[in-house]
Amino acid sequence: MSDKPVKPVLVIHGGAGAITREESTPEKIRERREALLASLKAGYAVLKQGGSALDAVEQAVLSMEDCPLFNCGRGACLTSEGTIEHDASIMDGRTRAAGALSGSRRVRNPISAARAIMERTPHIHLTGDGVELFAREQGLALAPEWYFYTPERLEALRRIQAAKGQPFVLSEKDRHGTVGAVARDADGNLAAATSTGGYANKLPGRVGDSAHIGAGTFADNATVAASGTGHGETFMRVVMGHRLSDLVELTGQSLDEAATAVINDIGRFGATGGLIAVDARGGAVMKFNSPGMYRGIAEDDTFKVAIFGDEEVS
Amino acid sequence: MSDKPVKPVLVIHGGAGAITREESTPEKIRERREALLASLKAGYAVLKQGGSALDAVEQAVLSMEDCPLFNCGRGACLTSEGTIEHDASIMDGRTRAAGALSGSRRVRNPISAARAIMERTPHIHLTGDGVELFAREQGLALAPEWYFYTPERLEALRRIQAAKGQPFVLSEKDRHGTVGAVARDADGNLAAATSTGGYANKLPGRVGDSAHIGAGTFADNATVAASGTGHGETFMRVVMGHRLSDLVELTGQSLDEAATAVINDIGRFGATGGLIAVDARGGAVMKFNSPGMYRGIAEDDTFKVAIFGDEEVS
Repeated sequence: MSDKPVKPVLVIHGGAGAITREESTPEKIRERREALLASLKAGYAVLKQGGSALDAVEQAVLSMEDCPLFNCGRGACLTSEGTIEHDASIMDGRTRAAGALSGSRRVRNPISAARAIMERTPHIHLTGDGVELFAREQGLALAPEWYFYTPERLEALRRIQAAKGQPFVLSEKDRHGTVGAVARDADGNLAAATSTGGYANKLPGRVGDSAHIGAGTFADNATVAASGTGHGETFMRVVMGHRLSDLVELTGQSLDEAATAVINDIGRFGATGGLIAVDARGGAVMKFNSPGMYRGIAEDDTFKVAIFGDEEVS
Repeated sequence: MSDKPVKPVLVIHGGAGAITREESTPEKIRERREALLASLKAGYAVLKQGGSALDAVEQAVLSMEDCPLFNCGRGACLTSEGTIEHDASIMDGRTRAAGALSGSRRVRNPISAARAIMERTPHIHLTGDGVELFAREQGLALAPEWYFYTPERLEALRRIQAAKGQPFVLSEKDRHGTVGAVARDADGNLAAATSTGGYANKLPGRVGDSAHIGAGTFADNATVAASGTGHGETFMRVVMGHRLSDLVELTGQSLDEAATAVINDIGRFGATGGLIAVDARGGAVMKFNSPGMYRGIAEDDTFKVAIFGDEEVS
């Protein structure tokens, strides 16, 4: 913690991908902007009241999990078997404590379960049936499977699977949607959280970067808090969040330079995606190499959101 | 790949922990040394014939998975429910391709399944039932659950669970046992592999660092190949393998200096464990902060193993 009070800030993303004006209607754009604003307000309200970065990122992600527009919680992508399997993780920059889950099918808010795993078990990552067993023991809210399903995700899976002989072919549109939040609170503490349904037609049991501490989520008060969205396997090979942290710590690069370098790494492996990050010195970035990324930032009691790549946050 | 031929080397570990002469019999020590030698010979035979580092680490780990003395494959630790749940991962330093699995119950050799996931799916990490589904489709060897059980692991679980009200209390002895291998082949390619049963009395569904690329396993021809053993949650927070790689790449530290720094990080979080690593320039290290680590190195057609902390490999 620094001696002088620092300005609280919250940054969120709602997925990066082939998001273009041509394929969007004004109505859809308005809906997304409102959903991003709702998430920002939920998280920033915590910071405004002097709450922790950890609480803020949980509330911001929880808001998006409850909204069917994003690929997480309600509205998640479906596996090749038509099932829902959530991944999520959260990390506290004060202690580097972390919690994660994968293959979760019944937990209503995966990000809150990830936090409970961090705080109430000696483990970091629980998967599959173990998540539900833990959630039931702890009295976490469960939901019936139908709660998570949306017509759009069912339609996307049918379309992909109609392309016979190409079980893994996806359009860019079917990949994006992972959500995340990073925050710095008034005490200078950092936190990061990420939540996703993975991507459409993934194999049952596929675990992505959103459940991997260091890849999709990382936070260390001494360096950065980061959350990623995009081609998860590439984020795992690049170890995105930890790479960003090491570049800032070990090379003296600014947060902006380091984030650009990491996105370039992602591109070198032929992948697209984006990241959001804050550092302890006041920096905040939203970087991506895809046509668009749902994103927003809240600071100084001001809320700004953006969607397309050629757009300033406003 | 470097222009000049480099000397092939294979390094293995069979777990780090409270391994002391006082608690070992000459017979047990001899058995372990033979098992380590068998693993070294299996992996080094590949390198000797001009094979790849990737094949070498798979064969070395496979040898330990088939041996009931190590906490992986046959002989794995049991969860708090008395079940077997294997984690494993493998990474190819040429391409940074990677494969991993967690919560695997029926696959006879988890390390070979991790490699199949790397080579035959668009994913890196499969978990739980998804592993078995994939393994059956691919015709990988399965084993009945009883195959993996050993009297020692059942006894360990009973002893731990007899300590009522302290469900997560483990002795150091119950933690160690994860195995791993790292290699550099004659073409200068690096690879790493790790396989484990986790630790005794873990919650069902717990995923450890051995399934996390960047934490328990990492390989990049440009830097290092590394495999870890010890308190998995700490290895995940430290992002062990990737941290070692970044220290070598970004700070100019030698492999030895960087490995010492990473083990010191592990210690700062109050944890114990060890790592093995090789780099592209010919370096090889075996570092740990526990009383002992089962370990061995093969190079120049010579095989050396060691167990206790005060012992040179010979």
